[in-house]
Amino acid sequence: MTLEILTAETLTDNIQKQVSELYRQLNADNKQRPLREILQPDNNVQVLVCFIDNEVVATALLSTYKVISGYRGMVDDVVVDTAQRGKGIGRKLMERLLEEGKILGLDEIFLFTGHHRSPAIALYKSLGFNLRQSGLYHLRLD
Amino acid sequence: MTLEILTAETLTDNIQKQVSELYRQLNADNKQRPLREILQPDNNVQVLVCFIDNEVVATALLSTYKVISGYRGMVDDVVVDTAQRGKGIGRKLMERLLEEGKILGLDEIFLFTGHHRSPAIALYKSLGFNLRQSGLYHLRLD
Repeated sequence: MTLEILTAETLTDNIQKQVSELYRQLNADNKQRPLREILQPDNNVQVLVCFIDNEVVATALLSTYKVISGYRGMVDDVVVDTAQRGKGIGRKLMERLLEEGKILGLDEIFLFTGHHRSPAIALYKSLGFNLRQSGLYHLRLD
Repeated sequence: MTLEILTAETLTDNIQKQVSELYRQLNADNKQRPLREILQPDNNVQVLVCFIDNEVVATALLSTYKVISGYRGMVDDVVVDTAQRGKGIGRKLMERLLEEGKILGLDEIFLFTGHHRSPAIALYKSLGFNLRQSGLYHLRLD
């Protein structure tokens, strides 16, 4: 198992294809943004991928931006292949993203996850994340 | 009343001072990131400020980033001076940020707010935001 932060240079059509298939396990209906857009230098997002035998088995993304409240990270698109769950891959991805966040000098990291996703919530809490007494509100523009 | 999106060129020490004082109404204890950092070109954040008689009376920030799930906006640091509330300033700020989001081609906008902030929640719902069945999790790194 290897973890790798993708770049525009290391991205291949094969990786894109595998990430797209994997992402459908998280959301089969959602239109996906292509990795070449995400890896543009002006988009401050770390794309972390886990490979086993040269196959993409998991992803996790860390977006960063500065607002008055602090230098923020947001974790999104955390997916572990259903066939690879229970092996601690999600924890390894998250630990790596927290390391990256520290290197970048982030003040804080946020993420949101469905109230029904018990294993994910247990993982995040074990890493020190706390549930905020806030609601998450969403508006589609397209 | 005028709304203005700040830039590194239009930022002055006086505006920074007024924004800092205003922000303390949202959070008196929080360490603030300076606007000159937020307005760096590699930080994709729109800083919207409302002036009345050349005084800063409100702020709202829109951060943007692309992940696999979509081209995202996050609204943060929405503050209206306590002396200026009830005049629809918050709504004007939010409407302007939604326009900016459409111009940028965002797929969706997220924000979070405390469960106890009833007037803010009513405003967001009236603009079309829906509460997601997700928890917001937070980790401080510093």
